[in-house]
Amino acid sequence: MNTQDTICAIATAQGGAIGVIRISGKDAIAITDRIFTPVGKHPLPLSERKAYTMAFGHIRQDDGEIIDEVLIGLFKSPHSYTGEDCVEISCHGSSFILQQVMQLLIRKGCRAAGPGEFTQRAFLNGKMDLSQAEAVADLIASSSAATHRMAMNQMRGGFSRELSALRERLLHLTSLMELELDFSDHEELEFADRSELETIAGDIEKVISGLVHSFSVGNVLKNGIPVAIVGETNAGKSTLLNTLLNEEKAIVSDIHGTTRDVIEDTVNLSGITFRFIDTAGIRDTHDTIENMGIARSFHKMEQAEIVLWVVDNTCAEAQIRQLSPRILPLCSNKQLIILLNKSDQVSAVPTKLSGLPENTVTLSISAKEKTGIQELQNLLVKTASVPELTSSDLIVTNVRHYEALSLALEDIHRVQNGLQTHLSGDFISQDLRECLFHLAEIVGGEITADEVLGNIFMKFCIGK
Amino acid sequence: MNTQDTICAIATAQGGAIGVIRISGKDAIAITDRIFTPVGKHPLPLSERKAYTMAFGHIRQDDGEIIDEVLIGLFKSPHSYTGEDCVEISCHGSSFILQQVMQLLIRKGCRAAGPGEFTQRAFLNGKMDLSQAEAVADLIASSSAATHRMAMNQMRGGFSRELSALRERLLHLTSLMELELDFSDHEELEFADRSELETIAGDIEKVISGLVHSFSVGNVLKNGIPVAIVGETNAGKSTLLNTLLNEEKAIVSDIHGTTRDVIEDTVNLSGITFRFIDTAGIRDTHDTIENMGIARSFHKMEQAEIVLWVVDNTCAEAQIRQLSPRILPLCSNKQLIILLNKSDQVSAVPTKLSGLPENTVTLSISAKEKTGIQELQNLLVKTASVPELTSSDLIVTNVRHYEALSLALEDIHRVQNGLQTHLSGDFISQDLRECLFHLAEIVGGEITADEVLGNIFMKFCIGK
Repeated sequence: MNTQDTICAIATAQGGAIGVIRISGKDAIAITDRIFTPVGKHPLPLSERKAYTMAFGHIRQDDGEIIDEVLIGLFKSPHSYTGEDCVEISCHGSSFILQQVMQLLIRKGCRAAGPGEFTQRAFLNGKMDLSQAEAVADLIASSSAATHRMAMNQMRGGFSRELSALRERLLHLTSLMELELDFSDHEELEFADRSELETIAGDIEKVISGLVHSFSVGNVLKNGIPVAIVGETNAGKSTLLNTLLNEEKAIVSDIHGTTRDVIEDTVNLSGITFRFIDTAGIRDTHDTIENMGIARSFHKMEQAEIVLWVVDNTCAEAQIRQLSPRILPLCSNKQLIILLNKSDQVSAVPTKLSGLPENTVTLSISAKEKTGIQELQNLLVKTASVPELTSSDLIVTNVRHYEALSLALEDIHRVQNGLQTHLSGDFISQDLRECLFHLAEIVGGEITADEVLGNIFMKFCIGK
Repeated sequence: MNTQDTICAIATAQGGAIGVIRISGKDAIAITDRIFTPVGKHPLPLSERKAYTMAFGHIRQDDGEIIDEVLIGLFKSPHSYTGEDCVEISCHGSSFILQQVMQLLIRKGCRAAGPGEFTQRAFLNGKMDLSQAEAVADLIASSSAATHRMAMNQMRGGFSRELSALRERLLHLTSLMELELDFSDHEELEFADRSELETIAGDIEKVISGLVHSFSVGNVLKNGIPVAIVGETNAGKSTLLNTLLNEEKAIVSDIHGTTRDVIEDTVNLSGITFRFIDTAGIRDTHDTIENMGIARSFHKMEQAEIVLWVVDNTCAEAQIRQLSPRILPLCSNKQLIILLNKSDQVSAVPTKLSGLPENTVTLSISAKEKTGIQELQNLLVKTASVPELTSSDLIVTNVRHYEALSLALEDIHRVQNGLQTHLSGDFISQDLRECLFHLAEIVGGEITADEVLGNIFMKFCIGK
């Protein structure tokens, strides 16, 4: 992507009373002056106006016909979002008008911006680091107080400051290690006690480890707590899912207005978002296609935090006995809830449900008659204890950050291991450098490859 | 609606990189200052800043938590869209953020604006007349070069100037009439020749009549040329409609992205929009419900400019003979096109189709086999000769204006009639006053009732 071009994009959604077109680059002001006729007492061209002022006037076609009466906001490098000269044209919100102005700008020398290209320029011009840039997209997508707070904190540099402090400590540790290396031939010199180094490394490990583990909370807040619904085909899984979704359908629609696929599967209970994952019915079969479906069910179960195992209560003990060997091994670090469905047909709870994990909860429901559903919802909310966040809490929500932090955690574990086993300083220094590298990737140092940048900004909306 | 309140609204559509909130009213600046913390070298509150400048800073909750980093545009009365003090807050385009800022503004003393309330204030504060205000809504809705041009011309006062010139001429005529009245007792005085008055009235009539008749063009450009498809139930009307729509479906979707009902019935051929009106099949029946459907078909036929009468060619003469008495009387000032359908089954054109209007065109088609469709499309484009518009052409597109002009035309006809029949000046003056009144209604004089204003601005989008 050429970063010398002057780029333009419609920055507002279609519809609405007003529409805004953004222009950024070294020719932003000159190009706009070619299509803009100021109106008023002081009809100065934009190039003669001060930054941070607005001008009223007309955007005209080449033949002089007025496309729109507009208001133009003027920003001069480096005091703009991108760090370049910028212009914002506020038009009437007709897509016809916006398209006409865009076409005119392109004819006059602008290029249509790619997704996130304005923010990418802000990053490249040092207006923000990579984690802050990524937070801009999260902020725009934020739909709850928690996701908004996390994104705002990250955009304002909260995460970057934490990483910067970590980096200082790692550099300190590295310099101590290098000191040891430089003077390792002079046996008379005394070096830093390795137990002191171990303490420093331990502190660093604690911080990185905390950030890595915060990802599960961040992910829950961003995407909802994954709840898998498993069981045999006729156990009533689909009815249960429909019952759970219908109960809250209106609320769900309010929150996730756009993506139908997500609406269908997400429910907000007491402010916590649950993402229900329906799975294919599990049974012993030799049918290849059906077995593929069952394999997918097991894979989805692995992603879940809570597993709802729906059992037909009319033959509960048999079903549980039969499927336990396949389901239970996958539930080791999950909350398993066994739902004895069709309780309207059989009121008795089976006397013996042996061999289940200790923390398993059992509940009698009737998905069809909607009995026990309120109890199930209460149980879900209780099980999913999401911590209250304050605006200073650091929560990792970005998969890219999570992966970099996980690698950094492995590095620091190797460092700790090396210190304990009295490994040569050379090797430990190498691990420390790796750790610094992985942390630097998050904020985007010199080392960030074009490809990585492309992937990050591709997910942005146009005009940001 | 209280016009003393300070109002606020989200002026951009949901989604997009940025969202804009508009505030207008005497407390707009003071209220915004209560929630805004400026950032930068000169962190002045808005109240101490100059009009037409922008300020960067934070919108904060009562507890100090940052809702967003924003850019604020400042406008001071009377140099703003509404004529009042105005503030525009440019936020990140998250609906969560926009809702939080709106709620905060309302807690601090703003009221959520109704549809079109900003433009209504602009009208009430004399920034524009009523026809210009109405053009703002048309401009936002404009989706083609023609509708954009008409709306822009009207918004910029082209129509108002024409009406103002008309008003001058009417006042001149009125004063001549009143002169005659004042001195009618003094028989020795010589009055303006009534034939001279007739010439003036004739000129005025010509202008009003031209505007009234431009409405059909305006309506066509705005809503498409109405084409009714009529015929017996099994003649193949629905197949024809599907064939016509399918051929151009992609293009139609591009233009009318939002309203499914409109997409289904509108086709753009060679730049002209046709609105196809499907009707219930016509046949003699005693079934009450079916007869209601047929009555509606006839009513829709009346609205059409072109009537496509689909006839089953396997029994063409019989069908035409049977339905002619019902269909032909409704086609007197329309273009009638008889489509001999199912030409794949019967190749011969019936030898005798007597008793049809002179300008009737007959075409053999097969809606199912899609033969003759291109010829039909060419014929439609040829029949619907829409004039090329220049930006100075005055075209009435608004039903309210059309109605007022039609009444004014009736008034001036009565004036002309009165002059010819040597009616007393009293009566003629009364008609002239009526004519002036109806023209004044268009631009919204002192006389505009609240109810009328409410109806006009109700159709606007929020935030404009």
